[in-house]
This record gives sequence, C-alpha cells and structure tokens, in this order.
Amino acid sequence: MSDAVASGIPDFSDDDRFFMTLALDEARAALASGDIPVGAVVIHEGEVIGRGHNAREALGDPTAHAEMMALTRAAETLGRWRLSGCTLYVTLEPCPMCAGAVLQCRLSRLVFGAFDPRAGCCGSLYDLLSDRRFPVRVAGCGGLLAEEASRLLSDFFLSRRGRPGS
Amino acid sequence: MSDAVASGIPDFSDDDRFFMTLALDEARAALASGDIPVGAVVIHEGEVIGRGHNAREALGDPTAHAEMMALTRAAETLGRWRLSGCTLYVTLEPCPMCAGAVLQCRLSRLVFGAFDPRAGCCGSLYDLLSDRRFPVRVAGCGGLLAEEASRLLSDFFLSRRGRPGS
Repeated sequence: MSDAVASGIPDFSDDDRFFMTLALDEARAALASGDIPVGAVVIHEGEVIGRGHNAREALGDPTAHAEMMALTRAAETLGRWRLSGCTLYVTLEPCPMCAGAVLQCRLSRLVFGAFDPRAGCCGSLYDLLSDRRFPVRVAGCGGLLAEEASRLLSDFFLSRRGRPGS
Repeated sequence: MSDAVASGIPDFSDDDRFFMTLALDEARAALASGDIPVGAVVIHEGEVIGRGHNAREALGDPTAHAEMMALTRAAETLGRWRLSGCTLYVTLEPCPMCAGAVLQCRLSRLVFGAFDPRAGCCGSLYDLLSDRRFPVRVAGCGGLLAEEASRLLSDFFLSRRGRPGS
C-alpha cells in the first residue's frame, strides 16, 4: 500500500516520488551543521529551480528553514517573486512561517513528507493553505515518503539525546 | 485618547512610541522601490539591532517582508538565532509567514501598528502568538500609531490605482 493510500489521500506520481527523493537528499545535507534534517526543492516545468535545507544553526538565522531557502532561490532563478506554476516538495509539513511563505509566493502546489503534529500548518494544527479568507489558496498534500523523512528526524533527535543543551 | 486606549488594549510607553516612529521611517523607505510601505525594527536593551522594510519588488524575493529582514539582521547582530530579550516593532500586523518567524526566533515581545483584517495573524484572522500548542508564545499587542501606518498604506494603494497590473 502506498504512502498516499495509507494516509487516506490521493496517490502520488512517479515524478512526485523522484522529486521527494531530491528533497530527502537535501534533508541529509542539513546534518553536517547539526541542523534538524529537513530538505526542500522547487520544481518548474520539470526542472529543479531551487533547493534548500534547514540551516538555522549553520547560518544563525531563525528564518533559514528548508522551504524559505528553496523558495528564495527559486525566485532568484525565475527572476520574479511570483512562483505560480511551481511545486514545492518538502520532507516535513510546513510550520506557520513556511506555510505563510508558500501563500506569499503564489505557489501552485505543495507536496510534503511527514506530518508534523506539533507545528504543522498544512493540515495538522491549521490548514492555512485552504483558508478562503486569504487572497490565494494553494493545493497541498502530505504523506509522500513520510517514513523516510520521519526516520531521518527521529535518528537525529535520538543522536542528540543527552548532549548539553539538548 | 491614545491609540492604545482607543483600541481597547493596554497603553504603550514613550519608548514604544519612539521605536514605532523608527519603524514608520523604514516603511517610507519601501516606497522608493514601489514596495508596499511596511517597516520594522528590532530592539535589544534599548538599542536598534535590526531594521527592515518590505523589499519584495526591490529584491524579487517573496519572503522579503519588513519583519523577516529586521529579524534576520537582528540575529546577525547578536550572532545567534534566538532573539529572546528582543522586541519587534512593525507598522502592520504580521501575516502568517511573519507571525511564524516571530515564533521561530523566540522573540520576547511584538508591537504592531495597524491591524490587518485581510491577512493578520496576531489577532485578526488568527492569533498564532498565543496558541498554546506551539512550543513558544510571544506577547503581542497592536494599535500603536496605527493611523499613521494605515495612512501610508492607503496613500500607496491610491497612488497605484489605474496603473497597469494594479
């Protein structure tokens, strides 16, 4: 049974799975700086136009989440802040900041991996992307390759256990 | 009657008013690039440690809101992403992205000017800062020098009326 069917949502395409594996590669890249492993890619017409991983510790920047990095780089690539026609793949359900950024950039579609019951704002705590009071809405769905995304996160938090400040 | 009393919230200090005038100065700086006039400053121990204005058009970056710029610069100044002990002054109630950023950086206090009934997430559409399901909460209040902040915005939108693409 696919991840999508298991979570009661429509099935994902082979392209979706491929692009999520790229986001998972980005998530692993966050580990080198001790950052929480979350990764993201932005796709436009079948091409990767932005990549990013969580770099809060690496950059000392509270806004340096994977989605923010990937969306900013995608805007640089296209030379415009409107990312209509683009899809963001991210390994973890976006927090309020990143869900808000998805709305700001007029993204066409969001696909995420693991749900985040503690801070997720695309279905878990809130569903900001479908709130009709905002001027735009974004199609979003989660659960794709969620087990792999969750495993990366749980391994990371287990490895930090007992360290000073953790 | 003060702005604060008029909107049914606790009164603001003279320092609060002074720092909001700095944020209003930042808002005016956004006009040069045709950006929506919103400005912000971050204060730590009585000093400005970060400034920013909306620069979405200037930078072609959908995440370049006043708050994001000011918070990122404040983190650079302090050399850490945790902005505990800091206050953010911003001329307009934060959107979901910026309210989320305020939570991410563990800010101590938020003061905003005009309420935003279309996208505000600090009391208008949502009150993200006081949601006890998130790991942190931030004290926030709005209405300070709101008339001046609103006038800047309404003058800007009136001046754009009838222009192509507006």
